[in-house]
Amino acid sequence: MAVYKKIELVGTSSESLEDAIRTAIKKASETLRNLDWFEVKEIRGKINGDDVQTFQVVLTVGFKID
Amino acid sequence: MAVYKKIELVGTSSESLEDAIRTAIKKASETLRNLDWFEVKEIRGKINGDDVQTFQVVLTVGFKID
Amino acid sequence: MAVYKKIELVGTSSESLEDAIRTAIKKASETLRNLDWFEVKEIRGKINGDDVQTFQVVLTVGFKID
Amino acid sequence: MAVYKKIELVGTSSESLEDAIRTAIKKASETLRNLDWFEVKEIRGKINGDDVQTFQVVLTVGFKID
Amino acid sequence: MAVYKKIELVGTSSESLEDAIRTAIKKASETLRNLDWFEVKEIRGKINGDDVQTFQVVLTVGFKID
Amino acid sequence: MAVYKKIELVGTSSESLEDAIRTAIKKASETLRNLDWFEVKEIRGKINGDDVQTFQVVLTVGFKID
Amino acid sequence: MAVYKKIELVGTSSESLEDAIRTAIKKASETLRNLDWFEVKEIRGKINGDDVQTFQVVLTVGFKID
Amino acid sequence: MAVYKKIELVGTSSESLEDAIRTAIKKASETLRNLDWFEVKEIRGKINGDDVQTFQVVLTVGFKID
Amino acid sequence: MAVYKKIELVGTSSESLEDAIRTAIKKASETLRNLDWFEVKEIRGKINGDDVQTFQVVLTVGFKID
Amino acid sequence: MAVYKKIELVGTSSESLEDAIRTAIKKASETLRNLDWFEVKEIRGKINGDDVQTFQVVLTVGFKID
Amino acid sequence: MAVYKKIELVGTSSESLEDAIRTAIKKASETLRNLDWFEVKEIRGKINGDDVQTFQVVLTVGFKID
Amino acid sequence: MAVYKKIELVGTSSESLEDAIRTAIKKASETLRNLDWFEVKEIRGKINGDDVQTFQVVLTVGFKID
Repeated sequence: MAVYKKIELVGTSSESLEDAIRTAIKKASETLRNLDWFEVKEIRGKINGDDVQTFQVVLTVGFKID
Repeated sequence: MAVYKKIELVGTSSESLEDAIRTAIKKASETLRNLDWFEVKEIRGKINGDDVQTFQVVLTVGFKID
Repeated sequence: MAVYKKIELVGTSSESLEDAIRTAIKKASETLRNLDWFEVKEIRGKINGDDVQTFQVVLTVGFKID
Repeated sequence: MAVYKKIELVGTSSESLEDAIRTAIKKASETLRNLDWFEVKEIRGKINGDDVQTFQVVLTVGFKID
Repeated sequence: MAVYKKIELVGTSSESLEDAIRTAIKKASETLRNLDWFEVKEIRGKINGDDVQTFQVVLTVGFKID
Repeated sequence: MAVYKKIELVGTSSESLEDAIRTAIKKASETLRNLDWFEVKEIRGKINGDDVQTFQVVLTVGFKID
Repeated sequence: MAVYKKIELVGTSSESLEDAIRTAIKKASETLRNLDWFEVKEIRGKINGDDVQTFQVVLTVGFKID
Repeated sequence: MAVYKKIELVGTSSESLEDAIRTAIKKASETLRNLDWFEVKEIRGKINGDDVQTFQVVLTVGFKID
Repeated sequence: MAVYKKIELVGTSSESLEDAIRTAIKKASETLRNLDWFEVKEIRGKINGDDVQTFQVVLTVGFKID
Repeated sequence: MAVYKKIELVGTSSESLEDAIRTAIKKASETLRNLDWFEVKEIRGKINGDDVQTFQVVLTVGFKID
Repeated sequence: MAVYKKIELVGTSSESLEDAIRTAIKKASETLRNLDWFEVKEIRGKINGDDVQTFQVVLTVGFKID
Repeated sequence: MAVYKKIELVGTSSESLEDAIRTAIKKASETLRNLDWFEVKEIRGKINGDDVQTFQVVLTVGFKID
């Protein structure tokens, strides 16, 4: 039967939560194949003055181990 | 006094988290009246290659019981 | 050594989750200096008919105490 | 072997937490038989001026499925 | 996009945890189509003398809404 | 759009949980306007001999920021 | 320095949550001295027909060890 | 009204999760009467080489106090 | 002093929870030495028709770093 | 009856966790009287090279409101 | 197979967190044999003026039952 | 935008919690660059007789991925 591994990443974006998620997944796909699903664990961010500087989304990414 | 019921749904969208929430609420409104509020319980998604295929938002929707 | 304080706010928006976060931070910056980071605690919202009326994002905002 | 279903309700009362629980159970018993147990998930409420307007008790109710 | 609903059940078995899960799913499939996945929320049970009388597995079952 | 603040209080009472909640809200209303809702976070208490001396209810109170 | 022990009890009452808490503390005081504080962990209950049969309050009780 | 006590045990087994639960309950029944229910809190285990050496199930056991 | 690393895996099995755990550990042992303990984080599964298709056990595995 | 307020602070120290807690309490005592107890919510820190640069202890501090 | 019991204690110290843990374990070892491991559940404390009066560490202690 | 990875480690020390944290970070820095922050997830330990044998601190360490 299949076995999957989950790793924990933090994606960042100055634009949106979706962008932050996509940034993390794009990066992970550079070194890992078979990325299958993600789960958001935390949403945080950095503030600059009176605005959001970066959204930080902590997520786990699951992928099948060959 | 009023009594409310909460049901748990998963909305999906290839576009955004807001879309996924709206998709679930629109669907629920087809069979339920008096939808009042929602609470996001989990944010997950499916990955295709190096990008998000679908955002999945698990939410509870509350509505007044007549 | 530095000491930080965290306060809990609820930002609202009819547009997006990011907007709701930004609304809360903008408001907080009117009376507080040195806003540094935020953490999303809860995502909820109000429903009107078959659509989202307002997104409500509960977040804590951290800032350095002079 | 027996199978049970759990549904999530919010009972309200201007009097007491016990009343809010009982209101939800009474309502549920109008359409469901075999109500067996309840579990309180959250206690919240609405404020009016300087007093509680309504206590809101979020609870799950379990019942046997025939 | 697809919308899913999650319901909460308690399956019981005097034999095993797997049996308790299967009992709940079998029962749910009598009235619902498209059952897709389950998530175990709690494992409990009833004791009789010095042995387990019944294993009780609280689980949510997800299914696509047409 | 509106922004709300949440503060955390502990109300106490030798009588009841409802009293403890009301005591906290009454106190908060002396210095804050627009109190809107509360959420119970914890229920604790002090014991004296074989009886409850005080019920302590930890709650957050939310109010609109002008 | 002092050391405390915490034990977990379930008090029951057909009347109220406060009663259920007091029942557990009274029972504990029959065999333990120096009961100091309690913390409510869970609120549950048994339903009979369309009403609450018993409120069950799960609580930990702390006491100083001599 | 009845009062129950809950104690926390860890049952172990090289065979199965059910066995680990039963081992803990059998042991508890040697010194306690009226064991009534159990709740699984954690599932862990020891690994030896490439296989499970022992399953460890952390559970609370509830029993009526006379 | 020793340092350990924990990784997160998902083992699957059509047979049992124990099988799903063992499948994940066997796979991990192909590339890692000194596997020491595991902790179950989540139990889920896929449904096919009216039966469980696969049990999925999310677990962390701990091992000593040389 | 007494009412208490809880605020959330982050104390930092390059030395120890106890120092980080004390730093936060000292700072809070500059503007607040009647500080009564604290509860640690999170322990985090900043890394510099291969060592801890600062320990950050997130804590709530409770104090009686006059 | 072995069975373990876990009890919950609160150790206190005016010096350090480690001291508070050790105080609880020393006390427990006066009446219990085979103490095996501990798990910290909560860190709290009492404040006196602008300093920590006592650190309170809530921990569970596990030991083998003969 | 930057992407970070988080790994989970257990540092041990017979001396102190801070030591256990530092041990884990030192070990991680042997194979990873850009270690940025840590978050304590659990504090546990091994008991020998009536004293702590080792403090075990479970922590996640975050670092930037080039």
